Amino acid sequence: MSEVGRVALLGGGVVGAGWAARFAVNGIDVRVHDPDPHARARVDEVLEDAARAYARLTLAPPVPPGRIEVVASLEEAVAGAGFVQESVPEREEVKRPLLAAASRAARPDAIIASSTSGLLPSRLQADCAGPERVVVGHPFIPVYLLPLVEVVGGEATSLETKERAAALYRTVGMHPLVLDAEIDAFIADRLLEAVWREALHLVNDGAATAGQIDEAIAFGPGLRWSVMGTFMLYRLAGGEAGMRHFLDQFGPTLALPWTRLEGPELTEDLTDRIAAQSDAQAAGRTIRELTRLRDDCLVSVMQGLRTHDHGAGAVLRAYEAKLFSRAHRAARAAPHDLSRPLELHAARVAPDWVDFNNHMTESRYLQVFGDATDALLRFVGADDEYMAGGRSFYTVETHLRHLREVAGGEPLSVATRVLGCDEKRVHLFHRMFHGERRGGSENENELATAEHLLLHVETAPGRAARAAAASPEVLGRLEEIVRAQAPLGPPDGAGRRIAMPGGRSPAGGRVGTASPDGAVE
Amino acid sequence: MSEVGRVALLGGGVVGAGWAARFAVNGIDVRVHDPDPHARARVDEVLEDAARAYARLTLAPPVPPGRIEVVASLEEAVAGAGFVQESVPEREEVKRPLLAAASRAARPDAIIASSTSGLLPSRLQADCAGPERVVVGHPFIPVYLLPLVEVVGGEATSLETKERAAALYRTVGMHPLVLDAEIDAFIADRLLEAVWREALHLVNDGAATAGQIDEAIAFGPGLRWSVMGTFMLYRLAGGEAGMRHFLDQFGPTLALPWTRLEGPELTEDLTDRIAAQSDAQAAGRTIRELTRLRDDCLVSVMQGLRTHDHGAGAVLRAYEAKLFSRAHRAARAAPHDLSRPLELHAARVAPDWVDFNNHMTESRYLQVFGDATDALLRFVGADDEYMAGGRSFYTVETHLRHLREVAGGEPLSVATRVLGCDEKRVHLFHRMFHGERRGGSENENELATAEHLLLHVETAPGRAARAAAASPEVLGRLEEIVRAQAPLGPPDGAGRRIAMPGGRSPAGGRVGTASPDGAVE
Repeated sequence: MSEVGRVALLGGGVVGAGWAARFAVNGIDVRVHDPDPHARARVDEVLEDAARAYARLTLAPPVPPGRIEVVASLEEAVAGAGFVQESVPEREEVKRPLLAAASRAARPDAIIASSTSGLLPSRLQADCAGPERVVVGHPFIPVYLLPLVEVVGGEATSLETKERAAALYRTVGMHPLVLDAEIDAFIADRLLEAVWREALHLVNDGAATAGQIDEAIAFGPGLRWSVMGTFMLYRLAGGEAGMRHFLDQFGPTLALPWTRLEGPELTEDLTDRIAAQSDAQAAGRTIRELTRLRDDCLVSVMQGLRTHDHGAGAVLRAYEAKLFSRAHRAARAAPHDLSRPLELHAARVAPDWVDFNNHMTESRYLQVFGDATDALLRFVGADDEYMAGGRSFYTVETHLRHLREVAGGEPLSVATRVLGCDEKRVHLFHRMFHGERRGGSENENELATAEHLLLHVETAPGRAARAAAASPEVLGRLEEIVRAQAPLGPPDGAGRRIAMPGGRSPAGGRVGTASPDGAVE
Repeated sequence: MSEVGRVALLGGGVVGAGWAARFAVNGIDVRVHDPDPHARARVDEVLEDAARAYARLTLAPPVPPGRIEVVASLEEAVAGAGFVQESVPEREEVKRPLLAAASRAARPDAIIASSTSGLLPSRLQADCAGPERVVVGHPFIPVYLLPLVEVVGGEATSLETKERAAALYRTVGMHPLVLDAEIDAFIADRLLEAVWREALHLVNDGAATAGQIDEAIAFGPGLRWSVMGTFMLYRLAGGEAGMRHFLDQFGPTLALPWTRLEGPELTEDLTDRIAAQSDAQAAGRTIRELTRLRDDCLVSVMQGLRTHDHGAGAVLRAYEAKLFSRAHRAARAAPHDLSRPLELHAARVAPDWVDFNNHMTESRYLQVFGDATDALLRFVGADDEYMAGGRSFYTVETHLRHLREVAGGEPLSVATRVLGCDEKRVHLFHRMFHGERRGGSENENELATAEHLLLHVETAPGRAARAAAASPEVLGRLEEIVRAQAPLGPPDGAGRRIAMPGGRSPAGGRVGTASPDGAVE
């Protein structure tokens, strides 16, 4: 990074401003030149969006951000810069003289990269001083987030230039795809342009609207493309028989009028070449392994979209809401023996709840206990409608004991006691079990316990929450459970405090001690 | 759902088996007919993959699964079924007689759907009895996961048939895209086929390999397509100036040789139509709002892929690893005053850490405290290398106090005391603050505390972990901190147990009480 020093950006549109954000977030100073008087405002706006995205993207401690200056001339921008990235409009007659001027103003060892989506680098570098250090680095919007950058050299570009450009892009979190030779539109834009032109035909013919075409991508094929490209996906679509089978089966459709683009003839030679390249991609992984990788990734992608209630994630959320409401109706309708611990919540250890040892992480124990608390509150009438009225229970104190590890994919169940309550407070004790509690010895299956003190509060927009009495109905239901469960006596492990055995107790006095030997197995 | 009764599936390949899984997971009985003797094994395999995916997809309680029978004849499959889904090879001369036979064997009110990717329903229904109930329902592999299904009627198909088919697909969690009229390859496969043929040309010309083409999708454009379609993405690429600006700017590239597919002429009329359809899609949302939605979704998609260390997620993971190791080196190198609480961990409240009130959820407090514990352990030498030797610290007991809420996006810091230790045990006390602890009043910024008892263990593959002494170096470092911090005295809130004020204490004796009034603000 230090080798590069400052980066010069020519053009401050959506792409140029995106570059500014990516470099600055990664601690590299940039100077932007764009004759448009709105360039500074646009750069600031994109920077703000990028900062917002990075705050969510990673918890890794950020590097101190680079400085961004918007300067008045090309010469000022490139002076002293070790790397120049041009992102002006997609016209050769605009780019070519600009790159030539930059090559004369820049340090002789500075790399000069163009963001062009498809113009040939051999032509872009033709008028440059030192054309061997001129290269294409084609990014994708949003430049500050998407990792792909195509690195393409022209006839005069040196191998070293391609390697140095790729190395810089890597330091700012990108994935350089280095092409061996130049072709119009490189690789990605050939595919993007084919989709775009086919889509324009569909609208032009009145066969589909922009909205329908976008749905046809984002609810289906687009989800897969975030995980794998077309060749790998089709290898998996061929099932265990693989790529050659897929080509044999779908070969004939190449002759059908399924797009206005005519395909090449699927000769023996082409089939052989594709099958061999597909084998190389698979790198020995079986269809089954790759299918599971695809599915795991698709599940995570859809769950990610669910967070934002968008696209395929909105479909998933609506689907789950139906399943949950069906289950809640069933739970309410089912008879519950209030004199026993209540079994209102079950879950399964999700793959992203585990650490590198495949053990459920500490915080996920508390998440499951929190869900069990929610289930109890709904059970006593503190449901969504109740909360919507500005009333809620907050957890103020929690005591957890970890008794046994549990692995990813395993089923969990929680049994809940209500140890006490008054107008404003509820004292709960949960026990978490592996599997269904009813089967097998309870002790062997017991994973953890959680003791909670909850406070009933009233909330109002813009005001701090205040402790307040729960509704008589909710309180009555809680008291009923306390009375019914009282004969069970205090549960093992309730009312404990933490201290070192034989050690100083910070609070003084007689204390309970953790039992290390039962704590792990 | 009950209206449909059983579903008949004709063809048990990757698509047919995928349908079997989707229907069965959603509680619908199916009968599959496929003359291939391997059909049963393939269906079982796909079912297993689907069950695995659904176990991760949602925590919503599943419905009791439908029964799957593989039967010997078409007649047996369709007898009594309310819905027939055909998924045999993509050849009209195979599909047409099969659909005709199914239409004669099926209930007169049964809907008959074809999974064809692009053959015209008017032709497929031509020989059928009751062609008005024959329709295309085109799904995407993996059928059990991807929500998109294109619903396309032929000339004879009734509107009611399209509506009933769409309703059934919705009940099994899909997103039906209902086309107004039929065209070859419908919508999605026109785009998929254009990409496929362009990709085949690239391989045929030797311009790119299957592996390069797949990278060009999955590290860039494919990520975006999981969120939005091409039209919406290009609207955003146009910046605040929007779709018309994008078309004006990129219109000329339609004439360039960027794909072998020629585009339509971008006439005034076509531009107007696209701009109007794009406005309809945006539905009043500004470019800025949509840009942030796109970015939020992209971040979540990349984080989802990071879980599996795949594609763009692997790039993100490697990038973060570099940031973390840089920060760890800096933290170790920085001077620390051991006589003060140690400030070794800071974080920011991520958007998916908050509840619907934008407050950080309980379990995320524990996650942050867990990360602070990890930072302390690394600080005393129990780092990755130490853990790799089969030694580790497990948390056996935790006591949390929640003092104040904190909102999404806010910065957090943790200060850590080591209250005691012996060979096998460490007693920790963390305080979590809003922002940097050094600024402002400590009490006002204090969000929560966590007291932990950790146990040092030895682990070996296939064996349960056992309590064991920590290394002399780690123990020495811990003891040094305990001695240095001892003059600070016991922290407020350590050594507490949970009880209802004035209530029965399950463990008996004098107890600390939660202070509800300080607990919320």
